[in-house]
Amino acid sequence: MTTEAAYAELVSRLKRAHVLGTVNGLLGWDEQVNLPPDSADLRGEQLALLAELQHAVASDPRVGELLTLLDGQPGELAADQRVVLKCSRRDYDRVVKLPPEFVREKARHSSQTFHAWARCKAAADFAGYVPFLEKQLELAKQEAAYLGYAAAPYDYMIDRHDPGMTAAVIERLFAELTEGLVPFMREIVSSPVKARTGLFRGFPVEQQRAFLHAVTERLGFNYRRGRIDVSLHPFCEGSAADIRMTTRFDKDNPLDSLFSAIHETGHGMYEQGTRLEHQGTPLGQAVGMGVHESQSRLWENQVARSRPFWRFFEPRFRETFSAQLGAVSSDELYRAVNAVRPTLIRVDADEVTYNLHIILRFEIEKRLFAGTLAVQDLPTAWNALAQELLGLTPANDREGVLQDVHWSGGMFGYFPSYCLGNMMASQFWYKVHGDLTGLEEDFARGDFSRLLGWLRRNIHEQGRRHDTQELVKVVTGEPLTPKYLLRYLRERYGPLYRA
Amino acid sequence: MTTEAAYAELVSRLKRAHVLGTVNGLLGWDEQVNLPPDSADLRGEQLALLAELQHAVASDPRVGELLTLLDGQPGELAADQRVVLKCSRRDYDRVVKLPPEFVREKARHSSQTFHAWARCKAAADFAGYVPFLEKQLELAKQEAAYLGYAAAPYDYMIDRHDPGMTAAVIERLFAELTEGLVPFMREIVSSPVKARTGLFRGFPVEQQRAFLHAVTERLGFNYRRGRIDVSLHPFCEGSAADIRMTTRFDKDNPLDSLFSAIHETGHGMYEQGTRLEHQGTPLGQAVGMGVHESQSRLWENQVARSRPFWRFFEPRFRETFSAQLGAVSSDELYRAVNAVRPTLIRVDADEVTYNLHIILRFEIEKRLFAGTLAVQDLPTAWNALAQELLGLTPANDREGVLQDVHWSGGMFGYFPSYCLGNMMASQFWYKVHGDLTGLEEDFARGDFSRLLGWLRRNIHEQGRRHDTQELVKVVTGEPLTPKYLLRYLRERYGPLYRA
Repeated sequence: MTTEAAYAELVSRLKRAHVLGTVNGLLGWDEQVNLPPDSADLRGEQLALLAELQHAVASDPRVGELLTLLDGQPGELAADQRVVLKCSRRDYDRVVKLPPEFVREKARHSSQTFHAWARCKAAADFAGYVPFLEKQLELAKQEAAYLGYAAAPYDYMIDRHDPGMTAAVIERLFAELTEGLVPFMREIVSSPVKARTGLFRGFPVEQQRAFLHAVTERLGFNYRRGRIDVSLHPFCEGSAADIRMTTRFDKDNPLDSLFSAIHETGHGMYEQGTRLEHQGTPLGQAVGMGVHESQSRLWENQVARSRPFWRFFEPRFRETFSAQLGAVSSDELYRAVNAVRPTLIRVDADEVTYNLHIILRFEIEKRLFAGTLAVQDLPTAWNALAQELLGLTPANDREGVLQDVHWSGGMFGYFPSYCLGNMMASQFWYKVHGDLTGLEEDFARGDFSRLLGWLRRNIHEQGRRHDTQELVKVVTGEPLTPKYLLRYLRERYGPLYRA
Repeated sequence: MTTEAAYAELVSRLKRAHVLGTVNGLLGWDEQVNLPPDSADLRGEQLALLAELQHAVASDPRVGELLTLLDGQPGELAADQRVVLKCSRRDYDRVVKLPPEFVREKARHSSQTFHAWARCKAAADFAGYVPFLEKQLELAKQEAAYLGYAAAPYDYMIDRHDPGMTAAVIERLFAELTEGLVPFMREIVSSPVKARTGLFRGFPVEQQRAFLHAVTERLGFNYRRGRIDVSLHPFCEGSAADIRMTTRFDKDNPLDSLFSAIHETGHGMYEQGTRLEHQGTPLGQAVGMGVHESQSRLWENQVARSRPFWRFFEPRFRETFSAQLGAVSSDELYRAVNAVRPTLIRVDADEVTYNLHIILRFEIEKRLFAGTLAVQDLPTAWNALAQELLGLTPANDREGVLQDVHWSGGMFGYFPSYCLGNMMASQFWYKVHGDLTGLEEDFARGDFSRLLGWLRRNIHEQGRRHDTQELVKVVTGEPLTPKYLLRYLRERYGPLYRA
């Protein structure tokens, strides 16, 4: 078999797995957006069967043969092909190292743990959740051991979401961030300047929908290859050929639906920015969760909470909602867009305090995997950290350790990506402003194309060519650092909250 | 292997194929309802892959082994199990008799022919369509030959849609129907009584949606296991666990969206009426297209065009649309619901003339498969029959032979099901009125539960226990006959159009 033929067969098998994955993704989207209430059992069967078929395609021994054949002939491969080979090898080794019985047991336990979590959260009953979470943690460690990470299971959890990243690197980054962020947050909290609450009332959903559609389209989302619908929790699903985003509507909170939509638009434009011809291969895939989050955060925060953005969109917002916005001044609107207020709930947090929620979770996960914190002692540790970092103590575990869904699904090591994404977004932000002059004038004219073009070339079209830290270095010339996030937050929020 | 174990394995394999089929169905639904305009290529790949996987599961030689094993031990099977075995044998033999290359060629050619049809229909260019349709007909005959129907290919086409039915039976039924229907239609056409046109203007879509949702729910559609959305052409997709129906809205034609929704509700309630525990086996499947159509037609026509139905719903209709209906009298409304007016276009036809459109197509298909009509001579034959049956001649082939999509996909033998469904609907209608007294009073109170219960017990829950003709005989005590359809049409439309 020639190298060329082997490579072609590998790509064809990867694409087949990708197409199955897109079907699985669509079923997941439909479950959140359309599924009738009593149709969940069938959806469960459909998802389980698709997962089984996907696993069979991805772990087919023929893929292993092709990889071995190609590994032996690196000289005959072009640079792009070597990227595909390297990433496919990583993926294949991970898939085949996990025994199918283990995968099934984990899936079964995750489903049970999800339901236990929902029940225990509603009842604020952490004790009832302990045995489920303990087993979930045990399974995570076992998975790490299968993958050769027995000595550093948390590194495996992190690397799964952000290839190449480690707990030690994150620890250093988060320490530096905490040092700058905690005092800055205290300055804001003690400032006499406050964003007014209760400014917004009675924004009709249809007009909100039309407005956010116009905004996200102007940012660059391609609605010919995607759409936006409604779900309980906003998310973005799909690949370049068909992106499904969601938001949610509250007639008294138009900024929530708008910023949720812009956030998901950032995720969607990352996928849409990968090349169609690379779909199914690592060249058409996102690097990891951190880089993905950098794209959603950059559009949501750096762009859409900025003065130039509102210079363009405020007149349009006022025109659409003239009856509702008559009594709201420009300054009040801008301060509402950039309100900072510590809260116990991560998903309600502003972009300043959000990072502290993540630092808290990273501390907890680190100790859990090091074995220095027992699952049953989680609430005590959580509440102490909440007081230390946010200055708030949960009244019960529902607004404390039980608030997030992630651990119930075994998604340890995922939380840090959110904060790494915030750091990257700022680091990219200063870099793009160095590369391109006049971006703020672009935004004030409603033109976001040069920014999107830069992100496409430097990040989206790169696929998985680099791992997370390499990408940051290649794009910005510097290793990942929290200093740009700290600088950005001071520059944006300092003037706003200066008495 | 015990009989019990073999049967259990067979059912588990059938259910697996069924789950894959439901995924395929959902992709098809989403394609019509949600797909972004430039995402069609990916959808094509997804559908092709799912079809391939479904075929592999359905034609797995292990299914053949299990069937052979069970075929040898009929005495050990319960009655229900023998039904499953008989139908599964029929399905399996059909699947494995078709060479995979043939299936692929047919799929490829069908896709090309669909696009050629759309192009040629737009241009009213039948000549350009001829080679595509000729090949499609050739492939249909070849398929019939693979299945052992070389001598009677049209019977195979019919049997595919309505198990047990033949062209000879249909010919006899349609001749009797034509004899009664053509003179009756002429009476109506020459009546001085006419339904007024242009009665309806400016019905807001949101209110239409709410009204038809309330109507279909009251008829008995279970919205906890289904939903209704919008598509260009109304359809119903899914199985008992998750039914997706569609309708379309025109603010100047509220009856179109309402009756489309009621029609699809009939289809949906048939599927919802099969038992959940039988999903995936022939006991949880519809008999065929004719019986399916009998359910949609019975609710759309016999029920929803009746006086008692409107006795209940007219006040609600007027309450919802008081501004629009002020000048419309009850008689005008009822006559609009039951307007009869011959048209060249099948999908615009009323329930009296609709049957003549089908008889025309049956005549054409019969001659095509007998070889007595060449594809190139179709327009001449079509136009002559249209004049003979409907008293109208198409101005061009767009409103003649090119109007329907079916043949482009190789769906010969499908059209008769529509008319057989109308016959069955009437035959069931008189039978249920014999079995249950006071149904009209039920309807006038908005209670449709006794009718639905009867249909469930007698038809829906039977699955594929009987073939089409057996089912009619078992349920009504008589063979399928057009006399009830003729009686029903005379009873409903005679008084309305009597001068």
